Amino acid sequence: MSKPQTAITPTRAEDFPEWYQQVIKAADMAENSETRGCMVIKPWGYGIWELIQQQLDRRFKETGHQNAYFPLLIPLSYLEKEAEHAEGFATECAVVTHHRLETVKDEETGKTKMIPTGELAEPYVIRPTSETIIGAAFSRWIQSYRDLPLLINQWANVMRWEMRPRLFLRTAEFLWQEGHTAHETADEAIEETRMIHRLYADFLRDHLAIPVIPGEKTENERFPGADITLTVEAMVQDKKAIQAGTSHYLGTNFSSAQDITFTGREGTVEHAHTTSWGVSTRMIGTLVMAHSDDDGLVLPPRVATQQIVIIPVTPKEDTREAVLESCHALADTLRNDLDFHGEKLRVHVDDRDVKGKKWEWVKKGAPIRIEIGPRDVESRKVCMSRRDRPSNDKEFLDKEEFIQRAPDILNEIHDTLLHRATEFRDANIADCTDLDAFHAHWSQDNPGWLMTPWAGSPEEEDELSKKHKITIRCLPLDQQEGDEAACILTGKPTKQRALWGRSY
Amino acid sequence: MSKPQTAITPTRAEDFPEWYQQVIKAADMAENSETRGCMVIKPWGYGIWELIQQQLDRRFKETGHQNAYFPLLIPLSYLEKEAEHAEGFATECAVVTHHRLETVKDEETGKTKMIPTGELAEPYVIRPTSETIIGAAFSRWIQSYRDLPLLINQWANVMRWEMRPRLFLRTAEFLWQEGHTAHETADEAIEETRMIHRLYADFLRDHLAIPVIPGEKTENERFPGADITLTVEAMVQDKKAIQAGTSHYLGTNFSSAQDITFTGREGTVEHAHTTSWGVSTRMIGTLVMAHSDDDGLVLPPRVATQQIVIIPVTPKEDTREAVLESCHALADTLRNDLDFHGEKLRVHVDDRDVKGKKWEWVKKGAPIRIEIGPRDVESRKVCMSRRDRPSNDKEFLDKEEFIQRAPDILNEIHDTLLHRATEFRDANIADCTDLDAFHAHWSQDNPGWLMTPWAGSPEEEDELSKKHKITIRCLPLDQQEGDEAACILTGKPTKQRALWGRSY
Repeated sequence: MSKPQTAITPTRAEDFPEWYQQVIKAADMAENSETRGCMVIKPWGYGIWELIQQQLDRRFKETGHQNAYFPLLIPLSYLEKEAEHAEGFATECAVVTHHRLETVKDEETGKTKMIPTGELAEPYVIRPTSETIIGAAFSRWIQSYRDLPLLINQWANVMRWEMRPRLFLRTAEFLWQEGHTAHETADEAIEETRMIHRLYADFLRDHLAIPVIPGEKTENERFPGADITLTVEAMVQDKKAIQAGTSHYLGTNFSSAQDITFTGREGTVEHAHTTSWGVSTRMIGTLVMAHSDDDGLVLPPRVATQQIVIIPVTPKEDTREAVLESCHALADTLRNDLDFHGEKLRVHVDDRDVKGKKWEWVKKGAPIRIEIGPRDVESRKVCMSRRDRPSNDKEFLDKEEFIQRAPDILNEIHDTLLHRATEFRDANIADCTDLDAFHAHWSQDNPGWLMTPWAGSPEEEDELSKKHKITIRCLPLDQQEGDEAACILTGKPTKQRALWGRSY
Repeated sequence: MSKPQTAITPTRAEDFPEWYQQVIKAADMAENSETRGCMVIKPWGYGIWELIQQQLDRRFKETGHQNAYFPLLIPLSYLEKEAEHAEGFATECAVVTHHRLETVKDEETGKTKMIPTGELAEPYVIRPTSETIIGAAFSRWIQSYRDLPLLINQWANVMRWEMRPRLFLRTAEFLWQEGHTAHETADEAIEETRMIHRLYADFLRDHLAIPVIPGEKTENERFPGADITLTVEAMVQDKKAIQAGTSHYLGTNFSSAQDITFTGREGTVEHAHTTSWGVSTRMIGTLVMAHSDDDGLVLPPRVATQQIVIIPVTPKEDTREAVLESCHALADTLRNDLDFHGEKLRVHVDDRDVKGKKWEWVKKGAPIRIEIGPRDVESRKVCMSRRDRPSNDKEFLDKEEFIQRAPDILNEIHDTLLHRATEFRDANIADCTDLDAFHAHWSQDNPGWLMTPWAGSPEEEDELSKKHKITIRCLPLDQQEGDEAACILTGKPTKQRALWGRSY
């Protein structure tokens, strides 16, 4: 048998990491820049981010949060206040030390060049996250229990100097939202942390068609400075884990360090309980790895930059005008008359006079492709291809029927992607209670995840993790109330279950 | 007569710059931070920016532009390529020189502190604007005339180290959009520059109720590296000018420096003609200074964070429930059933149990305030106050009538603000053809603008500018085709008219 031809080389099976880069390139989503570790997000990729932003933002506002904006640069003294937090980010901070440039002559080359000048008395770091600078504002804003809860979100760029960058998944600069809230009691703050955690899990499932395992991080894996870190973990097609979003209960750690206090109901001065939570452009990398195939990107319909792409087929000049008109009329009807989850449909007519258009849209992952030729105009039919089916699959539909069914078809595509990803994930998580089997598991290529009873110490967890290049992805929320079993390492009886895997 | 009491101290007449700070504080829009020159934009102020963003973004997309995102950090070598551009921003660049922090013990205090480490071989500057880094991407993306025009916009933060910062108007970090386009011919690029210039003028008039003078900057005032800079100039209530948006034709200056070339229709390699254009959070400062009064902020309805604020008046406990219910029902009706320029109305019910709510909303500039008390519930009436009328002005309306008229009333408020600002501006621009009168004019307090015939050299312009602390705000587009007159300085006959003023 000859090798089946695919639009992307290499295939997933041949070289998953390289396949990923090639999918992004073929879909024209993003590219590396000459700024170390930083990417350029191109319109097709940025369109996905805009949709994620709009849809998440609506959910944040519905749950009482307001947007605000805080400075990009954090005074070093702010960072120093919370020692654990500062240590956690110290090795990846971009530092601003000067505020001018001066033109000088290079002695060697004779050319002029620019050098930094105007050294700052106190350097600044570009925010790797904003707990400290937002905490400083909260400290000014909060006086009384009447000012609580304070529910703030910021859409922003942040920077963490990454040594091994990878488009979307791990870049020195990335875009994200960071929620920061302050509450009167621990209970309220923990409920906020959990509510957002559920919101993230629902969003990933309902908008990105990604099923996640919601759980708690162990102490080793917590956000620097947090008391509780909740995470949503996605499995992608090489069976690695991606932490797709986190929600942290910070206790009074930051409020103590930053003096976020309020006069309580009884007149005493108390520290506020704070939370923080975020998702980033990393979600785009996650959806690429979760759904795409050897022909390129596969976009979940709700965040597809274009949901329906109409390609006019115009073999002859004399029918060209009629075909184009029919395509544009269909696009207008789809855009104006239909509703898809409260939004208008995003429809594009590709009327460029170039070859290979069909494959471009396959590679770009448009959920539905429609071709219309001269005969279809007469017969009032359309030829439909769906990105969740093989690339050469075609279906002829009456135009009216297609118009009526378009939102349902998009929902079907969403459901197919979610179903596939769920089946794949469930087939690749196994329970394990035997230590030898556990050790043996990780020597496979692309091993799946293992769920084990776990009662080890942070040091024991660290040792197992380093030995196999794995981590406890989380303690899954729905697995902590079952029977006692012997901890896979120590043999101690425990109800706790840990989910282990390799990750990006 | 005693001094009339105002909600803001000082009044505009007493101390305009301080009044401006106090309006922003009283409206809870923004505040200074401990990061030098950088502000925190609070929810009420950020809400205005979100609306400006959404509404402008729609216009950019309707005119064929796509959003993308480029790195925050620009390699120094990029900046060096376009000498004039680099010089223009050299004195205000924040420079990143290190990528780690290290904890050390302070010899003097004995405490630990963090210091920068991991020096970069090539420093980066935080983008003061993105021509150079976007140009580098354009150079990769553009091969043939078929790739043109390339129409890109970016929403981003930028940084210019300001020595005399002022909230919104001049901050070290600010939020903006920057459009960057590349075209086959000079004509096309100039038409793009002009189209955006008109779009800005229309937007300021139709969304912010600010009448602007559209015109061209003189060579002295051009963007560093541009061939043509078009500007929209707003006059605020102390008669100073604010440059509210600019659109630049960059010729082939950047494309030559950055090798943005394409194979043309005749097969020859040519340089693309590029443009760039932007507006920023400065527009928020402009609208504050243009419309607000001695009682605080006055928001143009289309960009008001909340357009209608409903205040329940609940003097007695037994009618409290009925009043609150009536208020929330009215809010739902207004939100769900009405359309205002294609958007839903933004309505807030202030049901907090605190005193002084009315004045809070006056100071926050909500366009319409509605009060509903127990008797109003029975008589189905509402008590309406409009922010374009004196603060104690009230009008009783049937609830149904108010619901029906609400969008019209908001439009009337917009028209009133625009009309007032236009009258004020027109009353404060005078023609001047006499040099002595010109010199005398600028010794007044808060002098208005002067329009003069002008044929001076850049050096002569600079001399006049420095002498009176003024600038040529622009050569107004609609004033360049009239009769010849003698240049106010040189006496040379000229059709050119220049508009002079003091500015922020």
